[in-house]
Amino acid sequence: MSFTRTWSVRFSDTDPFGIAHYPRMIDAVHETSDMFMEEIGWPYWELNEEHGLGLPLVSMDFDFTGQVNGGDEVEIELDATVGGSSVQFEYHATHDGETVFEGTEFRVCVPLDGDSGVEVPEDLRAALESA
Amino acid sequence: MSFTRTWSVRFSDTDPFGIAHYPRMIDAVHETSDMFMEEIGWPYWELNEEHGLGLPLVSMDFDFTGQVNGGDEVEIELDATVGGSSVQFEYHATHDGETVFEGTEFRVCVPLDGDSGVEVPEDLRAALESA
Amino acid sequence: MSFTRTWSVRFSDTDPFGIAHYPRMIDAVHETSDMFMEEIGWPYWELNEEHGLGLPLVSMDFDFTGQVNGGDEVEIELDATVGGSSVQFEYHATHDGETVFEGTEFRVCVPLDGDSGVEVPEDLRAALESA
Amino acid sequence: MSFTRTWSVRFSDTDPFGIAHYPRMIDAVHETSDMFMEEIGWPYWELNEEHGLGLPLVSMDFDFTGQVNGGDEVEIELDATVGGSSVQFEYHATHDGETVFEGTEFRVCVPLDGDSGVEVPEDLRAALESA
Repeated sequence: MSFTRTWSVRFSDTDPFGIAHYPRMIDAVHETSDMFMEEIGWPYWELNEEHGLGLPLVSMDFDFTGQVNGGDEVEIELDATVGGSSVQFEYHATHDGETVFEGTEFRVCVPLDGDSGVEVPEDLRAALESA
Repeated sequence: MSFTRTWSVRFSDTDPFGIAHYPRMIDAVHETSDMFMEEIGWPYWELNEEHGLGLPLVSMDFDFTGQVNGGDEVEIELDATVGGSSVQFEYHATHDGETVFEGTEFRVCVPLDGDSGVEVPEDLRAALESA
Repeated sequence: MSFTRTWSVRFSDTDPFGIAHYPRMIDAVHETSDMFMEEIGWPYWELNEEHGLGLPLVSMDFDFTGQVNGGDEVEIELDATVGGSSVQFEYHATHDGETVFEGTEFRVCVPLDGDSGVEVPEDLRAALESA
Repeated sequence: MSFTRTWSVRFSDTDPFGIAHYPRMIDAVHETSDMFMEEIGWPYWELNEEHGLGLPLVSMDFDFTGQVNGGDEVEIELDATVGGSSVQFEYHATHDGETVFEGTEFRVCVPLDGDSGVEVPEDLRAALESA
């Protein structure tokens, strides 16, 4: 499913050029996934203690096509796709209708006591796909 | 005047103890002042180019009396007081009615080409006191 | 005891005014305490699992008297003082011999399963005072 | 040329799982490029004022193959390749001989008053390739 949030670019996000520093954009990307997981009832802070699993990042691939400044409102959309033991988050960020950045994160479902992937549990799969 | 915003504690704000890391609380404090300045029409990102001044921090004094976790909603209230060439921001943060932290920042109004304080301009003073 | 490290101000630490953003100075303060605790053999990441205690911040009080830019080398000195159940870290940061900021953090020693202070263990006290 | 630095994973870099949070790895990546640019005499904080240009990120592509904890020492190697108007930074990070992450950043050389790429100046090219 698709989830959208508005990221307000703050003074702290901007660098000496007066534009958002790209590591702060990555913070906004992660925060978007954090808000999404909370929205679907599987917040990151419960994955460990309540579900005994993690969703570590395996790879990321982003294109930056626009710059934003303090005070800009950026719409970040997240689409989740679930594979066997993997989860893919696609991001598309726009400001005033123009794409600012877009990219994909690949995550794998791992039990806390292991490091190889396991099947995404059915209830997590259903939650991710319902969004 | 008084300004209040809600800080949602995110996964990224928490440390290995599972609680908000205090430097992330200071980020939330700064963000609160950033949102306040934008609200009153004097965003930090315009201070320099449009007004030729800065409001650097001179001192800060904070007490931390509670811990918060990922997903907690913290109300942060800011009260501004204006002196001759100084501005004082008082913060009071609560979660579920309990104080989490409170403290004060002292800032001084300086022109961009100098480093000693100048009188806070009348329009900035009026904006700060109207909040 | 006293511990000193050099903080190299990086591009990411600077804001649109081209100077270090004060929340990044607080990050450098925390990092200094982190390096100090590692140096004396009690790294923060072992406090919990190996010693069953924490040293949460109770209050902080800082004065900022100078500005630094990307590339500046800032000497940050930490002095630790141990009370009954409390630990006090005093910081003094200089650049080119001028004080940039100085301040104090008050921390309290708490067991993981409680939230009121306990006596600082003798071995931790000895380590803190040996520095 | 190739440039290597050691990234010490700090408490602040770790999340509730006790491992380095991936946005903090991206901070370490950026910091590595910042140290590299300073090393070759073209620090990011001088690009604007002294050279009238920027090197904004166009895309990034990273694979994460290992996890690191507080106190770990990670070797991050950067290799720079210069195209016509582009610069490519390849990163390879290892801990105890195992790859932790690796990836590539593509940057473009732009004048401050424009947003389309220009030829990388000869002296910058020489500096990047000498590393």
